[in-house]
Amino acid sequence: METLGDMGEHEAIRRLVALLGTHPELVTQAGDDCAVTRLGDSGFDQVLTTDPVIQGVHFTDVENPRRIGNKAAGRVLSDIAAMGAAPQWLLVNVVAPAELEFSYLEGIYQGMTALCGRFGANIIGGDLARGPHVEIHVFATGVLPSGSALLRSGAHAGDAIYVTGPLGCSLEGRHLDFIPRVEEGIFLRESGRVSSMMDISDGLATDLRHILEQSGVGADLAANQIPRNGTLEQALYDGEDFELLFAVASQQVGPLLEGWSCRFGPAPVRIGRITDDPGVLRLVLPDGRINILKNKAFEHFSGDREAS
Amino acid sequence: METLGDMGEHEAIRRLVALLGTHPELVTQAGDDCAVTRLGDSGFDQVLTTDPVIQGVHFTDVENPRRIGNKAAGRVLSDIAAMGAAPQWLLVNVVAPAELEFSYLEGIYQGMTALCGRFGANIIGGDLARGPHVEIHVFATGVLPSGSALLRSGAHAGDAIYVTGPLGCSLEGRHLDFIPRVEEGIFLRESGRVSSMMDISDGLATDLRHILEQSGVGADLAANQIPRNGTLEQALYDGEDFELLFAVASQQVGPLLEGWSCRFGPAPVRIGRITDDPGVLRLVLPDGRINILKNKAFEHFSGDREAS
Repeated sequence: METLGDMGEHEAIRRLVALLGTHPELVTQAGDDCAVTRLGDSGFDQVLTTDPVIQGVHFTDVENPRRIGNKAAGRVLSDIAAMGAAPQWLLVNVVAPAELEFSYLEGIYQGMTALCGRFGANIIGGDLARGPHVEIHVFATGVLPSGSALLRSGAHAGDAIYVTGPLGCSLEGRHLDFIPRVEEGIFLRESGRVSSMMDISDGLATDLRHILEQSGVGADLAANQIPRNGTLEQALYDGEDFELLFAVASQQVGPLLEGWSCRFGPAPVRIGRITDDPGVLRLVLPDGRINILKNKAFEHFSGDREAS
Repeated sequence: METLGDMGEHEAIRRLVALLGTHPELVTQAGDDCAVTRLGDSGFDQVLTTDPVIQGVHFTDVENPRRIGNKAAGRVLSDIAAMGAAPQWLLVNVVAPAELEFSYLEGIYQGMTALCGRFGANIIGGDLARGPHVEIHVFATGVLPSGSALLRSGAHAGDAIYVTGPLGCSLEGRHLDFIPRVEEGIFLRESGRVSSMMDISDGLATDLRHILEQSGVGADLAANQIPRNGTLEQALYDGEDFELLFAVASQQVGPLLEGWSCRFGPAPVRIGRITDDPGVLRLVLPDGRINILKNKAFEHFSGDREAS
């Protein structure tokens, strides 16, 4: 019998998704940052997502609980930002041992509500159950005009690839304090110029590969153009950056980024281009040499790194 | 410092809910079976709920995984039924150890999708993460016409109290196999005659108290009219029945139940009446004696019983 450890998280998810059905009001199923559903003939679509934050996997025992709450809400808000949607409602399941101090749980909630409040989102329900360690499972919905969600599947050969901020070394601190790029995501979606978008949670190299697979394209990354906090390796593989990664036709870049800096500060950085070589992700070094990047995704059931 | 064990689940939830905000599109907040939100001016409301199913709390290690999946989906579908809504979308977070056989997880998904399929609901997303034991966190949405959700707060003195089936002893087997009363819930809501409704998950005596508190009323239960599988004590306190409990003005009962038996089999049973004595729950014995029922709610952080 095959165990989850033998198979790995991504293969297990792939096989479970194959068990799920379809529905005429389901626009985009499991496989993007959020599922997208049509809200009848209201003119709007709803996006839905869920993420767990688990003690010992996503945070250590001694973290400030408000920071844990910020991360728990921030992860789902970043998924919603990655579709270009406005977040609306969150529900939270907490699992905790009986010995946990209530003030710790209260801190987690304060961290979540502070971040939600920034974007007009509200926690409206959830549940509390007993378990051996602390887990926070957050479910969230968002809304956007019908048919406007930015998917992983829309990139075209020739598009420029952009990222909204520096990558790498997030686990040394920022992964608990990040502000999801909700307003930037809405700005990019409203521009009507972005062909494909997602957020970076598993690392640039791993996440870009999802866009390549779902769009049927390849990509060249320019090694010396990737904005980074540490080494190139860290920028490519660390993950937990929660920056937005998007593709845009080259001639659209000028009008797209007009007005960005006044609203959001430093402009997104161009890091490469989409190619017509399906599934091939190449790193172009400053001296012109080319590395083919292999898949090194974090696997929940075999890795020992903090990420997801 | 106060721990969750000192405080108990219900007090902890009460204090956390006090931290949450409000919103003009939020119709009903945490405290009912589902939160209710307005879907803009579409004419519809959305209900949202979440429930965990945890190994060692809600099921034992050796259960058939399909039955665990049935319970995991059934709990949230029962919450949606309790509002009178039609279920739509589910997202599922699974936590599992690396040693778990994939076929076990597949069985859980088969149990969930089989039950969802029965009601036209779809699992459309979720996540998979590593943890010491199996947990299934299910989030679900449903839909109904604006303003028509059946709340815990609508009962009036003089209303008759009904339950849709026999209570008690669920933990001896049925708690894993129950079919949530989704179609019955929609039927009751569409009638326009029901004043208040919820599902029975914590036991009749405990759950009826929620209706009393939120409606500002009391209730008399007729001991010998409560349909039960075991003893009266079990019918009052076992929980995990997932039957619907509702109140209806006496003169509406006839038209309300017309057509029920053809569609659903045995009719709901009248078990008592709503009184104008706020918060007082009385059990009327066959000999006319009266017991005042005290609150004996299951507490996740102090109890050792299987329920939630």
